[in-house]
Amino acid sequence: MLQSTRLKENPKLYIFLPLYHTLWEDSILSPTEIIQMQSLIQKQKWLSDAERNWLLKKIDPTQAPGAKELRSWKAKIKKLDLGPYKNLYEIGEALAKQQAPDLQFEEQLRSDFQEMETALGLLSIEASYHYKKEHLTISTGQLKENNFEVSTMTDLLDGHENNLIQRIKTILADPIFRYTENESLSEKREQVLRWCEELAKQGFGAWAYPKFAGGRGDMEGYFTIMETLSYHDLSMVIKFGVQFGLWGMSVYFLGTEKHHKKYLKDIGTLNLPGCFAMTETGHGSNVRGLETTATYNHKDQNFSIHTPNPDARKEYIGNAALHGRMATVFAKLIIDGEDYGVNAFIVPLRNSNGKTVEGIQIEDCGRKMGLNGVDNGVIYFNQVVIPKENMLDRFALVNEQGEFESPISSDNRRFFTMLGTLVGGRIGIPRSALSACKSGLTIALRYGEKRRQFGPEGGEEVPILNYRMHQRRLLRPLATTYALHFALKYLTARFLAKTEEDGQEIEALAAGLKAYTTWFTTDTLQECREACGGKGYLSENRIDALKNDTDVYTTFEGDNIVLMQLVAKNRLTEFRQEFGDMNMFTIFNYVTNQAKTSITEKNPIIIRSTDAAHLLDFDFHLNAFRYRERSILSSAARRLKRHIDSGMDSFDAFNVTQHHLVEVGTAYIERVILEEFQKKVKEIQDLDCRRAINQLCQLFALQTLEKHRGWYLEEGYMEGVKTKAIRREVNQLCWEIRKNAIALTDAFDIPESCLAAPIAVRVSD
Amino acid sequence: MLQSTRLKENPKLYIFLPLYHTLWEDSILSPTEIIQMQSLIQKQKWLSDAERNWLLKKIDPTQAPGAKELRSWKAKIKKLDLGPYKNLYEIGEALAKQQAPDLQFEEQLRSDFQEMETALGLLSIEASYHYKKEHLTISTGQLKENNFEVSTMTDLLDGHENNLIQRIKTILADPIFRYTENESLSEKREQVLRWCEELAKQGFGAWAYPKFAGGRGDMEGYFTIMETLSYHDLSMVIKFGVQFGLWGMSVYFLGTEKHHKKYLKDIGTLNLPGCFAMTETGHGSNVRGLETTATYNHKDQNFSIHTPNPDARKEYIGNAALHGRMATVFAKLIIDGEDYGVNAFIVPLRNSNGKTVEGIQIEDCGRKMGLNGVDNGVIYFNQVVIPKENMLDRFALVNEQGEFESPISSDNRRFFTMLGTLVGGRIGIPRSALSACKSGLTIALRYGEKRRQFGPEGGEEVPILNYRMHQRRLLRPLATTYALHFALKYLTARFLAKTEEDGQEIEALAAGLKAYTTWFTTDTLQECREACGGKGYLSENRIDALKNDTDVYTTFEGDNIVLMQLVAKNRLTEFRQEFGDMNMFTIFNYVTNQAKTSITEKNPIIIRSTDAAHLLDFDFHLNAFRYRERSILSSAARRLKRHIDSGMDSFDAFNVTQHHLVEVGTAYIERVILEEFQKKVKEIQDLDCRRAINQLCQLFALQTLEKHRGWYLEEGYMEGVKTKAIRREVNQLCWEIRKNAIALTDAFDIPESCLAAPIAVRVSD
Repeated sequence: MLQSTRLKENPKLYIFLPLYHTLWEDSILSPTEIIQMQSLIQKQKWLSDAERNWLLKKIDPTQAPGAKELRSWKAKIKKLDLGPYKNLYEIGEALAKQQAPDLQFEEQLRSDFQEMETALGLLSIEASYHYKKEHLTISTGQLKENNFEVSTMTDLLDGHENNLIQRIKTILADPIFRYTENESLSEKREQVLRWCEELAKQGFGAWAYPKFAGGRGDMEGYFTIMETLSYHDLSMVIKFGVQFGLWGMSVYFLGTEKHHKKYLKDIGTLNLPGCFAMTETGHGSNVRGLETTATYNHKDQNFSIHTPNPDARKEYIGNAALHGRMATVFAKLIIDGEDYGVNAFIVPLRNSNGKTVEGIQIEDCGRKMGLNGVDNGVIYFNQVVIPKENMLDRFALVNEQGEFESPISSDNRRFFTMLGTLVGGRIGIPRSALSACKSGLTIALRYGEKRRQFGPEGGEEVPILNYRMHQRRLLRPLATTYALHFALKYLTARFLAKTEEDGQEIEALAAGLKAYTTWFTTDTLQECREACGGKGYLSENRIDALKNDTDVYTTFEGDNIVLMQLVAKNRLTEFRQEFGDMNMFTIFNYVTNQAKTSITEKNPIIIRSTDAAHLLDFDFHLNAFRYRERSILSSAARRLKRHIDSGMDSFDAFNVTQHHLVEVGTAYIERVILEEFQKKVKEIQDLDCRRAINQLCQLFALQTLEKHRGWYLEEGYMEGVKTKAIRREVNQLCWEIRKNAIALTDAFDIPESCLAAPIAVRVSD
Repeated sequence: MLQSTRLKENPKLYIFLPLYHTLWEDSILSPTEIIQMQSLIQKQKWLSDAERNWLLKKIDPTQAPGAKELRSWKAKIKKLDLGPYKNLYEIGEALAKQQAPDLQFEEQLRSDFQEMETALGLLSIEASYHYKKEHLTISTGQLKENNFEVSTMTDLLDGHENNLIQRIKTILADPIFRYTENESLSEKREQVLRWCEELAKQGFGAWAYPKFAGGRGDMEGYFTIMETLSYHDLSMVIKFGVQFGLWGMSVYFLGTEKHHKKYLKDIGTLNLPGCFAMTETGHGSNVRGLETTATYNHKDQNFSIHTPNPDARKEYIGNAALHGRMATVFAKLIIDGEDYGVNAFIVPLRNSNGKTVEGIQIEDCGRKMGLNGVDNGVIYFNQVVIPKENMLDRFALVNEQGEFESPISSDNRRFFTMLGTLVGGRIGIPRSALSACKSGLTIALRYGEKRRQFGPEGGEEVPILNYRMHQRRLLRPLATTYALHFALKYLTARFLAKTEEDGQEIEALAAGLKAYTTWFTTDTLQECREACGGKGYLSENRIDALKNDTDVYTTFEGDNIVLMQLVAKNRLTEFRQEFGDMNMFTIFNYVTNQAKTSITEKNPIIIRSTDAAHLLDFDFHLNAFRYRERSILSSAARRLKRHIDSGMDSFDAFNVTQHHLVEVGTAYIERVILEEFQKKVKEIQDLDCRRAINQLCQLFALQTLEKHRGWYLEEGYMEGVKTKAIRREVNQLCWEIRKNAIALTDAFDIPESCLAAPIAVRVSD
């Protein structure tokens, strides 16, 4: 061929080959670029006219080199040993000298080439990598390491509950608990019922109940059971929670000895499946507005339970569609036409043959987004008569004279006291949610370690977990998962030691952590799904179930936004009480001044500091979280007061500041999480584990500051240089934690049979 | 009873009753509060000792009033006509005077009371509302209005495609398309196949194909069909897209006349179901790395298609598990041991009886998170021989001599050119996604309008859409939905008018809008689910399907993060080309200076401006978006250059800046969306519609600025006062748009039979 002839006869031309090949291989030349190339070539006076013409022709798009020619150029270049060459000029020079060892080029040519490469936007080194056989980069090299003993970390996470946890895991590994794919609702529900019966047989159902009911009186253990079971099918967990938690504990905490003796044992063994019938179609969040009635009949000394209108039907009631035989029903007690507020009653739904009793009508809620193993139903009561002793009478009763009696005189306060005894649900749900997160992250991180995609030119493909965005996606939530693990343990401990004094604080803490954890779970599992691409979409890899089953957790036990406002209102009350007899105006002045003066960290050097030691410092983190918490709370209080003072209805004032109030709740919860996490880190004895967890604690703190950087900048607590430095530090921490990522999820010690995702099959070490 | 006796005998005491009732009704008195109350009572010298003692007793927690007593107090208070009274003192005064009309109280008492109410943190007006029968607030009052003609808005959205859209909607309303609940995969898949056959019968399948193949050559119509069908079941849409889009259009765009004549007609009628077999288990995003081989056999002049290793099997292939009879298979062409890059081949999978042909092995992907009506499968090829004419040879062929020939010499560029012809998928997917958003928002907003929960003391419960957080949740996405509607129309128009010059720009635009829209869809449907609480979790209300079916859209047609980087790289290239022959260093200086000087808006007055007219101004919005786009792009370029100059491998440099690059893509896409939205607003003739859309455009702009406020503050483009003012303005716009919310979703004109959610049954006007 002519071209080859020209090349063979004119070995000098070889110096252009790598540049020409690169140009045609990856891009279409723009008119400007063609002009630039033309001028480069015109400048080369050492070329013959024929050579120059050949070169000009080869950048003319109408006479571009063909596929075969391009391929032959590449083959020639790749034959070189390309180790030492830094750019296309050097490769070309070597190539030319290979053809004609005596060739010499002027120094000017090198700089002409480099200018050209720059003008064309070619990254010289990058372009030359194209021809190398191997190409190692930092991104290629980042591999996993175990910088701590995994089993030590597991012990640290499990704490003194480790024996119970191991026992549950052993049971879950039994073939009885193998997942089955059930297409039909009824098969799924039967499967889940059988699993729950199995767990009851093992004594887990009654665990929190008193000894006489077959239990151990161990409430902490109950939460541990919920949490550990949540590595398995979540329908099973919710069915378990409905039966032994909601149904059983409503009898336990709202009833008295006669109810305990009569029901608890059968509930704990699942001989008496039951429901917790609170929510109505018309009232979910605002349960104070429930409309079902329990009317006292003086003559027969019994109650009639009734659904007065379609919106008052009980809805979404777990265990109702199929298996429930009784229910704790929340209804307004009516005596002589007078409304004594919402109370709780045991109402039979079905007889032992499973037939609904007279006056009860039940509909099936049908298929749901998830939790399809739970049989949710709708219940209507048509004047269902129950005996007087079926009133759960710990907090209120109808006496012999048919009069209402209660140690708590206010209907409202009595109702909220009753609800307060059931706050355990707001601990069980986030602990279950967090287990689902752990499963999701374990699956996604193992896949991220194995899955390779893209890589440097001429190099191997890179594990996707080496990509910075992938690390941000999965490692930030990993840090938060560890943070929440300890926060939920703290919440549980506070709950178990609850007194009358700190009752409301703990209710707020539970509400806030429930909201925070379940939102986090939804976000995290969504990230896991996307991070696993198509594999994450296949049901076999279980992210589908994890995501969809937990999706309703943000609604369970109270809608998260409603809960966060409840937290905020509690904080506003505490805020008021903290300042005793000062009036509101004094308080605001006080807080404003305190905020102004106490914040020594808000000096010009600190707000601009980008020093790594400072950015990673625990005190810096906690001060920043506390500042945010206090400042948002007091500004919310001020805003509310200003609105009300200006004549706004307080309902409107709360509505106008609703977004602000959610932030009040969030800032409080985040401060608690960080405080407990830092405490925990300081307690850890094992230095390797401590180092690993320390980084997670820093990452949790810094990612939270990064998330709120808009606020910190608005407040002048940080300047732009600092928030940018925080972002860099977050990325850097992700990069470092990545090495431990698999070990950190291995430490969750989730049974492989529970994980079960083919993409999560353990990478051999 | 003694207490009543005391009250009856001492009518003055009645003045304390509302305060006392309020104290006991809603709270437990703290020790400090008891002391404050005691001191108030001690001060009242006009009371007798007996009266004073009675009052002191009634705030002693050990002698608190009983339920009956509290109830009787309340009943007494509620008998008053409470209209005129502003606080508890006034109510008490009226109550006392009712008992003894001659009573007079000193003025001091009023201020004592008020101080007490303040110290106790009672909101006087709020507390007094407790006893009123009616309580209207601004939040209660906010109702829907229609401030524009819905049908005019619909016309405006539909544009010149309105006839086609109406035709499709009419067909979807046919009973054949009624949703059925299919528990089993196979039923679902058969149902979806039947629906697609029905659509093919109507001529929709071939719509984009040439006349000779039964089509209309109307590509724009094809996108409109995809979009409108997406109000219905999304499995049907994806099956439709696989058959007529991926399979059909790969034959159309990668093949030549012989293929068109032979296949297109049967594809368009669904007589020849087929697949698009590109993705392999080992290569999804990095399709250049596909490993399936197509080896040319000189002797028989045919190809052998082969899966060389398990990772090279084709995975997730739609239509493969059950119905596909042929597939466009992407494989590396090998001639004489030489690899000519990835090319496309038509390969038979099943014969007309549905039996797989020899050498083909197919597995079922099984159940997925969603789209279970689509039969995705895995395909292995074991030396499947196909005739030479089955190579789709628009861009490359093997000639009579068995030599490779192509008008595009670079394998890479040829492959990306081939992919470029298939960019339509990146338009169809976001348009389908946006329809799902529209359905979700219509359902959630209608529910938000009907559903009432909580309300002011003594007032009616309030539609949840009147709550500010609920408005932020749903109305911000509503604004973005309108924005994206017009942006996707713009993208479609650009695509239809594509030339060689703007091809890469349009590919980047499509990639970016696909990523942006599908992420937005995932977020929005998640919000819709939560905003509908338990109702949103029931499958009957369809948010389940909408969310889960579209979840994989963020992965379809390229993982969103990968796509956003592609957009960023395209922007970096354009950035370079824009500056012609300047070298990189000059460019950076130029841009930095330009950024510094051209931004007249960055003066001290503007960056602090909180003036509403300024905040709502289109120019302010667009300037801010453009500034961000330019600034992020040039800083990314600078960072990359700095890293590379300091010796970092470019692969690592791109990895280190990955997060930044995603922002480059996002900022570009957001600027385009806003620019097109503003253009559209200015074109609208109908003033009412224009006013409504104008607000949506402002809300889209301001919520985006709010989202990025951290960045604007870091850059000093805005100060805290301004970003706070923007947040207020976002909330205010939500509040105003809320009135139009239902009308704005009605304008989508989604067939009621497609919406089908019981909670979305239209509110009667």
